[in-house]
Order: sequence, then structure tokens, then C-alpha cells
Amino acid sequence: MSTLGGICISTQQIIGDPVLREQDFVCSVKPSTTRIALNDAIKNSGLFFPVDPGADASVCGMVATSASGTNAIRYGTMKENVVNLEVVLADGTIIDTKGKGRCPRKSSAGFNFTELFVGSEGTLGIITEATVKVHPRPQFLSAAVCSFPTVHEAASTVVEVLQWNIPVARIELLDTVQIQACNSYSSLNLRESPTLFIEFHGSNEKEVADQTSAVEDICKSHEALDFDSGASPDKRATLWKARHNAYYAALAMRTGARGFTTDVCVPISKLADVISETRSDLDEHEILGTVVGHVGDGNFHVILPTIEEDKTEHRKIQSFSDRLVRRALAADGTCTGEHGIGLGKRKYLREELGENTVRLMHTIKHALDPNNIMNPGKVLPEL
Amino acid sequence: MSTLGGICISTQQIIGDPVLREQDFVCSVKPSTTRIALNDAIKNSGLFFPVDPGADASVCGMVATSASGTNAIRYGTMKENVVNLEVVLADGTIIDTKGKGRCPRKSSAGFNFTELFVGSEGTLGIITEATVKVHPRPQFLSAAVCSFPTVHEAASTVVEVLQWNIPVARIELLDTVQIQACNSYSSLNLRESPTLFIEFHGSNEKEVADQTSAVEDICKSHEALDFDSGASPDKRATLWKARHNAYYAALAMRTGARGFTTDVCVPISKLADVISETRSDLDEHEILGTVVGHVGDGNFHVILPTIEEDKTEHRKIQSFSDRLVRRALAADGTCTGEHGIGLGKRKYLREELGENTVRLMHTIKHALDPNNIMNPGKVLPEL
Repeated sequence: MSTLGGICISTQQIIGDPVLREQDFVCSVKPSTTRIALNDAIKNSGLFFPVDPGADASVCGMVATSASGTNAIRYGTMKENVVNLEVVLADGTIIDTKGKGRCPRKSSAGFNFTELFVGSEGTLGIITEATVKVHPRPQFLSAAVCSFPTVHEAASTVVEVLQWNIPVARIELLDTVQIQACNSYSSLNLRESPTLFIEFHGSNEKEVADQTSAVEDICKSHEALDFDSGASPDKRATLWKARHNAYYAALAMRTGARGFTTDVCVPISKLADVISETRSDLDEHEILGTVVGHVGDGNFHVILPTIEEDKTEHRKIQSFSDRLVRRALAADGTCTGEHGIGLGKRKYLREELGENTVRLMHTIKHALDPNNIMNPGKVLPEL
Repeated sequence: MSTLGGICISTQQIIGDPVLREQDFVCSVKPSTTRIALNDAIKNSGLFFPVDPGADASVCGMVATSASGTNAIRYGTMKENVVNLEVVLADGTIIDTKGKGRCPRKSSAGFNFTELFVGSEGTLGIITEATVKVHPRPQFLSAAVCSFPTVHEAASTVVEVLQWNIPVARIELLDTVQIQACNSYSSLNLRESPTLFIEFHGSNEKEVADQTSAVEDICKSHEALDFDSGASPDKRATLWKARHNAYYAALAMRTGARGFTTDVCVPISKLADVISETRSDLDEHEILGTVVGHVGDGNFHVILPTIEEDKTEHRKIQSFSDRLVRRALAADGTCTGEHGIGLGKRKYLREELGENTVRLMHTIKHALDPNNIMNPGKVLPEL
């Protein structure tokens, strides 16, 4: 039994095995279940839970933070993959957003509370059970690696892939500095230029081959320096592991450094320009940083290995981050595509959403949690 | 200028042309724009707005009622297709749920207000602008018509198509009585047995042919009586027009009748049983009614041509509807898949969502609309 602000939550509410409803493509998990544990539990069903932020986060935590990751472009973010939630409210009452145990594929009954709790970062209630969508595991996979002379050409390629409606499962950009870091950290031998890692999913070999060939044509029309789609499953696993280790690879570039990570997301039409401007900004200010991201969603991160004790450097990095956020906001984007607001980004929220929307957030917060016991101080900017 | 409960809304807020942002696959519309007008406005872009409830509803109205329709199985319902909303709140303030003009493909910034207003049926605010997703128009289409000896086999076919992850664009069931009605109303000559209308979308001919052949195999394994996929574009248009006219066809079966329509949605695993039981219920109680629906989502309607003045009949039909809703709820489904709660279904909401969730709806309603001026009396059951 744990307590939070006077609310009692029993162990049974927190720990339990995933319950798969195979024919309905949903699985219910308690807070004790992580993403990998969920996939292990259902591995014999031919189904999988696709949302993959890299880290082995708890699924309920991923709901609370509205996580996404590398294959959101094909399978959606958490918001598109949550069907029903059990939530403990600030007054101790327990609700099921869609009614206990229900999982129709669609519903018009009552307010959409599921989505209200997704991404609320613990400020509106505690998620004690999540029913999420699971998907048929793709029967055929292939991957491609393609490098470009500039980040602008790489990003423009992504835009065109989307415009041609090719259902890529992942399309990730790593800029030159990130590729250098990955080569060193993961003992790879990739060409040191802006690179796309792409994955294709399909129900037969031909489908995957057609997607690969269509994307190859687009890459070539954007001055691709190469296009390697012949990776074996082992090589593919190595590449994606390197991608997932990008953060640690960036940190390893500088002894004693810790990571400062940005998370903007912009409309696709602005992606190539915003990434190019950001890369120029880093170079111009002589800031060590890598660009890596889920560019199929318009979302990219800059990983900045920094020495936390160096106040001057800290200010320099903070200024860079502010400029990046303002650049994204000016491009009709957001200060956070998938990491959430927490404490650090509250200062941008008024500029992004507008005063009235921030006030509405306070109205809702006050209605649900009048004593401010749910993750106090997070997400909401001061009134 | 119109006023509502003291709120002034200017004509400019209501009337205006759709604004397409082609490269970002979004289009912003004012309340004056209907679904067909939106598609007309963007027809030269190669993009289309897919949500299709049959009627030519206003897009902002479709947001408010969380509409869906025949191709939600492939393109999602309104909830999955709204990116940003401008809403006038009860106190007259105007908010943009994601911030003015913003349209990143994903965001973790602040509460998910967009989805809170989708399906709120005007009880939380008035939607004065909706930015919705538009999709590349499929380059290749084909259709198939397939009849079965029983509704159970037809519905089981749908379940298996989903399990094989075949991305059908539409899959609609019409039972024997509905087919008879359509044959008569739309001058068709379809076999009078439970029938699936199926549509396939793809980016090349092979993709569409592969989907068609995979679905044909599944149909045949469920004792399909025939499988006709050779329809010309004209024939295809005739079929879908007949499907969209199903409601009027059912009414035409009985002179002077008006329509009473149900709207349950159940998890796919329960679909075949719930439809079969419903058909038996109609037959057993000698009620004239047709079964038709978006079975790929587990959502189906019973259209009941009734003489409104006949009180005995009205009670009989109401009892049938109550039994149907309870059958759907017992199967972990919902009383409304796409038509909304309005007035008539408030009585089921407590049973479906649970007392605590209904109380939370009141908490939110009171916080946003303390004077109850926004579509008063709708959606929320009495406390």
C-alpha cells in the first residue's frame, strides 16, 4: 500500500500481468509493466506493442508522458494507441475513462477523457491501468541506410516520402556529428555525412521491396551519396541499436559530460529549413551538439554534451535551446514533440498555446485537483 | 453577428474558405464548410478529407459529434483526424487547443484539449475553426461484393480480415432485409442474403489486386456464396450510393414510416455473436428492421421504419433498442459508436462509463460552463 497526498493505492492496483485480448488487438497493463515486458508477454500471439521511445519505460508512464519514438510515423504515438484508462483522481475516486473493461474500436459516448489523461504528466490523476492497442507483427521487414551531402537534402527526402504516401515504419535522421559519434561508440563504419536510417514493414516480400525501391528513387533525386538496403537481420539490429544508443554516443564525445536534449517538432513543410538553421546555429556558436530525430513526424532532438558545473557554458546552451524553441514556434511547431513540459518547458507554454488555453489548463487542473496534490508545480505555467 | 447566451460570434468566425496547407496535409475550415465543400475545394491537390458519414455535414459539426462513417477503418474517425481547434468558451474567451495556426504532426505540450472538444456535442464550447488532416487520394481503387449464407459468417469474415491486417478502406455489412430494401429502392439485383461491400485503396494496381485476392480467400473460407470484384467505376459508384441510401431504402419499405436508428459498437471478437443475436431478436419479436454497418469497426446500425403515432409499436421498438444496448454493453461495447449521446442515450451513460466517470463529466462541464448555457440538457445524465 502506498499513499500519495492521502490517497491509498493498493499493491494489486500497481502490480499484475498483462491481459491480452488477442482477437480485439488490445492488452491491459498495470503500472509494473514496462514496454519490453509487455512485448515479451505477448510474443507468441503474433502481435506487438509498437510505441518505442528507446528506453524500457513503463507503459503507464508512457501514457502519462505521451511518449512516442522511432516508429510513431507508422503506428502513431501513445495518444493514438490508448483505448481505455483506469485513473485514480485527486479525491481518491477511481474512474475508467471508457467504462470498466470496455474496448470498442470507436465510441461517441461521453467526453474523451482517455486523451485528456494521456500526456497530463501526473498532474490530473494517477494512471493505474492502461488498455493499449497491439498490432499484428509485420511478417516482412527490411531496412536501408542512405547518406546525403547536406541535412537539407536528407530532410527534404523525408518530406517527399510522406507526400508519396509510402508507409515507412521508421525514418530517422542522424547528422554528420551524430554519425561520427555512433561510428566511434558502436564501432560502425558509416559514411560521415547526414544519414537516414529507414525501416519498411509489410505482409509480403514484394510489398517491402516496392516500398524500398520507391524510397530509393526519392533518395537519388535528392543527391543521395549511396543507398544500402542489403542489410542482414543482424546488421539491421546493429544499426537500430546504434540509433537507440545515439544519446550515449553523443555523451561519449566529451569526457565527464552530461546530456542536455531538445525536442522540437515542426510541420513537415518547415522541417528541412528548421534543421538546417539549427545546424548552422550550433556551428556558428561553436556548440558541440548532434542532430538526431524522428523526422517523419517533423520531430528532432539536438543532444548537447555539457559540463554542468560550467555556468558560462550552461547559459550558452540555454540560449541555444531558447533560440531553437522560438524557431520551432515561429514555424507553427511545438517546443516538445514527445518529451513533455515537466518543469523546464513551462516557460514556453504561454507563447505556444496562448494565454486563454493556459488559463483553461488551470481551470481543468483546479477542477480535478483543487488542493494541487497531483505532481504539483509541473506542466502548468504560473497564472 | 449571432449571440448565444450572451456570447457574440462574428460572421467572419463562421464563414470562410478552406485554407489548405498542402505540404503539411492539413486544411483549416470554418463552420460554414461542409464535408463535400471541403473536398471540392482541395480536389486539385491530390488530397482528400476521408471521414464520410454519408450526409454532407459541416466539418465543425462532425468534430462536435465525433462523426465517422464507412472508411474510418482505414482513415480513422474525426478524433484521429483533427489537429487543432478554435473554440469559443462559455465565458466568451477564444482558445486554440494547440495554439493559433500550429500543426505539428505530434506534440506533448500541455493538455490534449483537441480531443476533449471532439465529441463534446456543443456542451463545452462552440467550435469556430477546425484544422483537419487531409490524405493523399488513393491512386488505385477497387471494390468487391460478397454474399454469405448467414450474418454470422459475414461478420466472422470481417474479424478475420482484420486479424490478417489487410488494410481494407471500407467493409460494410448489409443483412438480407437491407439488401431487399436496397434492391427495391436503388433498382439493384443483388442476391438476397447477408452481404459485404468492400473497397480497396492502394498506390498501384498490384497492391489493390493483392488485397482483393487475400480477402477473397477469407470470404471463401467462410462459405461465401459468390465474390464479385469486377465492378466498373460506374457500378462501384452505384453500389456505394445504394449503401449511403440504405436508410432511405429501409424507410421506403413501409409507407408513412419514419426512421428509428440504433448505433452500438462492440469489440470485434463479439461482433458476429452480437449481430446474430440482434437479428434473431428482430425476427422473434416480429419487428421490421434492417442491419447495416461499419463492421470493420465493430459498429452497426439497426434501421427501424416505424409509425411514430403508434404508441404500442413505439414501446416495442424502445424495448428492442434497450435490449440491443444492454447486449452491446454486456459485450464490453458502447451504446453509441458514432451518433453521440444527445438526449436519448443519456440514460445508458451511467451504466456504460460508471458513476465516477459521469461525475467527472459533470465536474468538467461545471468548470467550463458554470451557467449551463452550452447546449444545456444534452449528453450529461442527471446527477
